[in-house]
Amino acid sequence: MATLCRPSVAVPDHVITMEQTLELARETHAGHPQRDLVLRLIENTGVRTRHIVQPIEDTLRHPGFEIRNQLYEAEAKARVPGVVRRALAHAEVEPADIDLIVYVSCTGFMMPSLTAWLINTMGFRSETRQLPIAQLGCAAGGAAINRAHDFCTAYPRANVLIVSCEFCSLCYQPTDLGVGSLLSNGLFGDAISAAVVRGEGGAGMRIERNGSHLVPNTEDWISYAVRDTGFHFMLDKRVPGTMEMLAPALKSLVAQHSWEVAQMDFFIVHAGGPRILDDLCHYLDLPPEMFRFSRATLTERGNIASSVVFDALARMFEEGTVETGAGGLIAGFGPGITAETALGRWVGVTPAGVGEAGTRVPEEAVVPVG
Amino acid sequence: MATLCRPSVAVPDHVITMEQTLELARETHAGHPQRDLVLRLIENTGVRTRHIVQPIEDTLRHPGFEIRNQLYEAEAKARVPGVVRRALAHAEVEPADIDLIVYVSCTGFMMPSLTAWLINTMGFRSETRQLPIAQLGCAAGGAAINRAHDFCTAYPRANVLIVSCEFCSLCYQPTDLGVGSLLSNGLFGDAISAAVVRGEGGAGMRIERNGSHLVPNTEDWISYAVRDTGFHFMLDKRVPGTMEMLAPALKSLVAQHSWEVAQMDFFIVHAGGPRILDDLCHYLDLPPEMFRFSRATLTERGNIASSVVFDALARMFEEGTVETGAGGLIAGFGPGITAETALGRWVGVTPAGVGEAGTRVPEEAVVPVG
Repeated sequence: MATLCRPSVAVPDHVITMEQTLELARETHAGHPQRDLVLRLIENTGVRTRHIVQPIEDTLRHPGFEIRNQLYEAEAKARVPGVVRRALAHAEVEPADIDLIVYVSCTGFMMPSLTAWLINTMGFRSETRQLPIAQLGCAAGGAAINRAHDFCTAYPRANVLIVSCEFCSLCYQPTDLGVGSLLSNGLFGDAISAAVVRGEGGAGMRIERNGSHLVPNTEDWISYAVRDTGFHFMLDKRVPGTMEMLAPALKSLVAQHSWEVAQMDFFIVHAGGPRILDDLCHYLDLPPEMFRFSRATLTERGNIASSVVFDALARMFEEGTVETGAGGLIAGFGPGITAETALGRWVGVTPAGVGEAGTRVPEEAVVPVG
Repeated sequence: MATLCRPSVAVPDHVITMEQTLELARETHAGHPQRDLVLRLIENTGVRTRHIVQPIEDTLRHPGFEIRNQLYEAEAKARVPGVVRRALAHAEVEPADIDLIVYVSCTGFMMPSLTAWLINTMGFRSETRQLPIAQLGCAAGGAAINRAHDFCTAYPRANVLIVSCEFCSLCYQPTDLGVGSLLSNGLFGDAISAAVVRGEGGAGMRIERNGSHLVPNTEDWISYAVRDTGFHFMLDKRVPGTMEMLAPALKSLVAQHSWEVAQMDFFIVHAGGPRILDDLCHYLDLPPEMFRFSRATLTERGNIASSVVFDALARMFEEGTVETGAGGLIAGFGPGITAETALGRWVGVTPAGVGEAGTRVPEEAVVPVG
């Protein structure tokens, strides 16, 4: 059994609002023939605020791929450990309990990846396996959960730490003036998240099945052009319509599990943009409330790439209304076009503070009495 | 059970010999204060020939990171499918039988990775899981085998395709003049390899255990500096001495498996350089013949990064002297500094052409008689 425990999420301090984004786009692209279309598209995202690692003035400058990567590394080292510590605490495990670290990030490149530094500085064992994934983009959050599930299926007592570190603002490319690029400039935000998947014990989503689906012949719909100036995010205009193709794949996975979408209780999906959520309501015949956590992530933080699913899941934990036994799914969508989906049941924390597996120590037990 | 079947390997047509390498280094670095040291170091590698994707004149030019990456993609698309087809044939599986593709490569960057293109063009199922790994460098061959082992442990009937595509010559950086860089210029070669790990059946190495080990506080000993000109390979002069630290980790994993190094029959290790092989003989108290396959790879192809272990393993299959039941290990070494090690027993093809698992059709059966 693999239980995805409560994620920890952090966002940087610098905030940019929808109004600021629109104003910037209006000024910067005053002569752009499709400026008004871009402004409409940005407004339609519903993204009210985004958090970014640098002030907006610095974000808009491009100091070169090398400096960008140095910034990525410095910001990751400054921000990831705190998020990891909270995720470990949420799952009630210590660094030494972790057997595999899955590190997903598509917005900076390091070799070795941050896994080596985390092991060296945070007390993980030298034997901890490292799985850095840089090329699954926004689908990598779902992929990380699924590979963690596989690992705990192979080694039922193992614990996996997932870290997602996405500084999308460090991929801003001022010379990219296509509509897809200008829309992306108004859509993506920065965030760091982490979560532990426990092989035994833990409260959260007990994963029962996972699956991957590639939409045939869409490999160039979401991609990076790798240039001397770094990663250039290329977004095809057909992407917002992909749920028509992915919804049947989600239904098919649910059917393999002898479940029905209509009877499921929660849906944590990658909120790449508003159309994804609208179309999932339509094609899965679900009310918008079913996607309220992903919608809130999109509204308050923008598309934070592989961190979306963890941010949305953290909101579901926060709301605290899902009951033990409830069935749901988590799905990451990204380049390929790929969907990485996990199905599972909720294992809640009982009022006494003891999880179903009985591993959580009630607060009373550790507080000296009298 | 997970059986690593016979790998398929290909190298490009352009060959550069040790003599040509030395001559080039002599000319290009005529005024370099450490030129003679570099020439000696290159001679000591014992690398006689290397294969590269472009003629040497083109290799020595740096057309920019963007063009380099375009070359990477074009060469990968031209060369990987044939290698994959042969690996599938060796394992007697079809594309539709593959459940996971692990694609390892640290010498070019694509998002989505080549996995999406392979699925779209080679008949793999849309449900095939994709695991691209770009940040484990030379250790990624071992890591790919180990993650395939984990996957088959979780799903015992699954089949995993591993692809390693390393065009090290596309990371040549003419402005890097440190001794480590000049040595690397004489050491690395290009190769593509693939192998299938079968959950059921198959002949080859039946993997019984895997382990990872990070040498503490060596994360900057092997690394990429990511610059506007691409990936710059940085090699610390302490790296050749790492086996003193990794040999005990290998012994410890062997001991966990209740084996002894002295009683093992084969050793397929990453031949990063000659010192690694010499030191493993010393610290594991083994004769040089035990590393003859890795030595041959180094001599004939240079350090071909994550492909070394597959090339060396292919040579062991070719030699055909390992008997069913023989115990051995495969170890990849790379940035971190990380060792990824698999232990297992040989499951050979019987004289009748039938593997232990009985899945191989004897040649007689498919040849019309009379």
